[in-house]
Amino acid sequence: MDERGALALLEGELESVGDDAAVVDDLVITTDMLHERTDFPAGTTRYTAGWRAVGASLSDVAAMGAEATAAVAAYAAPEFDREELLAFVRGASDVCELVDSEYVGGDLDGHEEFTVSTTAIGHTDAPVTRDGAQPGDLVCVTGTLGRSAAALELFEHATETNSEGTDTSKTVASGTLERANDLFRFEPRVGAGRTLAPHASAMMDSSDGLARSLYQLSAAGECGFAVDSSQLPVDETLLEVTATDEAALDLAITFGEDFELVATIPEDALADARSASDVDLTVVGSVTEPAHGITLDGDVLEDCGYTHGD
Amino acid sequence: MDERGALALLEGELESVGDDAAVVDDLVITTDMLHERTDFPAGTTRYTAGWRAVGASLSDVAAMGAEATAAVAAYAAPEFDREELLAFVRGASDVCELVDSEYVGGDLDGHEEFTVSTTAIGHTDAPVTRDGAQPGDLVCVTGTLGRSAAALELFEHATETNSEGTDTSKTVASGTLERANDLFRFEPRVGAGRTLAPHASAMMDSSDGLARSLYQLSAAGECGFAVDSSQLPVDETLLEVTATDEAALDLAITFGEDFELVATIPEDALADARSASDVDLTVVGSVTEPAHGITLDGDVLEDCGYTHGD
Repeated sequence: MDERGALALLEGELESVGDDAAVVDDLVITTDMLHERTDFPAGTTRYTAGWRAVGASLSDVAAMGAEATAAVAAYAAPEFDREELLAFVRGASDVCELVDSEYVGGDLDGHEEFTVSTTAIGHTDAPVTRDGAQPGDLVCVTGTLGRSAAALELFEHATETNSEGTDTSKTVASGTLERANDLFRFEPRVGAGRTLAPHASAMMDSSDGLARSLYQLSAAGECGFAVDSSQLPVDETLLEVTATDEAALDLAITFGEDFELVATIPEDALADARSASDVDLTVVGSVTEPAHGITLDGDVLEDCGYTHGD
Repeated sequence: MDERGALALLEGELESVGDDAAVVDDLVITTDMLHERTDFPAGTTRYTAGWRAVGASLSDVAAMGAEATAAVAAYAAPEFDREELLAFVRGASDVCELVDSEYVGGDLDGHEEFTVSTTAIGHTDAPVTRDGAQPGDLVCVTGTLGRSAAALELFEHATETNSEGTDTSKTVASGTLERANDLFRFEPRVGAGRTLAPHASAMMDSSDGLARSLYQLSAAGECGFAVDSSQLPVDETLLEVTATDEAALDLAITFGEDFELVATIPEDALADARSASDVDLTVVGSVTEPAHGITLDGDVLEDCGYTHGD
């Protein structure tokens, strides 16, 4: 059974499964586990890892339209290196500060593979769930799609360049790694989530890719989607590092881990939502009747993207 | 650097390090990571694992004297087996229900070793920290000490008996395993923590063993402790499964993972604390001046116990 099968199984057991975060009274809570092998490519600094791991949980809080109150992390590694640990904590603290949240520590644990589990809590009186999209609503995304895919290309390129071993190649690799780390440190859309919440009929983050997000919104809200590829805000670096624009588009739609928000917004609320949002909000398509399915430029968009446990 | 060194390092970085849970406004939040190899002996059912992992975080909430609001878990395993996953969720849900909390799910993740990271949140207007013990206060523990040490003996015994391979030995092993699992499923002392909170000058849980707890309370509160071994509520099963009473006493003091509360209580508040508590509360010693150090029957009690990362 893969992660999706397991999640489907749990939906029958737990009320809260199916949104980016669970809601308890006016609190939201969400947890994630990340591993070196699958989530932190070679070259990811511990500062970036702390930022990104905690950021992923803050993004889930953002997707509920909630304020981010605090975050914790359990940090497991084969050994506790002073500089690595401090860098991790600084990254975790900085991403919290960026979204007016507080990093309040966590647990340390000996483990063979560097593994981080993060939890964020937030507060909202009116959480935005995944199930409210109505035919006619517009589909909007914040920021750009493909930053993490671009970062991964750069991480791989830097590793290859570095293995050439010349001084020049090492300098190039170092600059490339810095750029990759910069791209990997995303801004959790907590502010945008707060401002979109009163306008959005449904919302989630794009952590598993836009395609997967649309399938999840479709399952929750019983609706279809029509997406226009020419409107997608493909990240500029991704366009630069991929061989063709088609390859970039494909990664922007399926790769995920961008932690942008995907929101459905009634047409008459768009202007207000846009003027309130502190980040770019791009209309990429519209909500359709369920029978329409999910399409990209009129063709069926495959349900492919990132699923843990595959 | 081991876990203690790493924690000491972080105390300079993060305000909240040093208590069982972090406090943010009137919320407490705590996270833990557990691994199959170090925390779940062969024979631990997934029901017990779910109970115990989530229970460990609820115990940290209890140690702050807070109500337990909710808990989440990130569940990582090489594969998602339907029965195992459901058993884990039932264990997690049942332990939450026992303490009037709510299990609200979490994250699923592919990982080589079965690993669980749990987070619990709670609520209190007056958290009890580790730093308030005053000379003259009494040292009290809830319940008994050594349940988990006893469970481990039984787990090991069952594995050995089972490997003999006869039908009789398999039946014996099965009964022993059931008993070990029962002992492993502790009741988080949330109710006791709530009732002790108004009376306790300092409190924490005994997850790293009584000896370690006293050293941690001593470091936080700048005090000493005099403990009387004849007063320690050594678990009956531990006395039964160890060769000598001395061996049982040693394990009861150092093994930990019992998740009982260790509280210091002013003498004149003891009667009220006791009558309010829903579990047995045993006075095991008293708080002394720091120069006294930490003693057991007048001799220095070594600072030994369970430290991750050793």
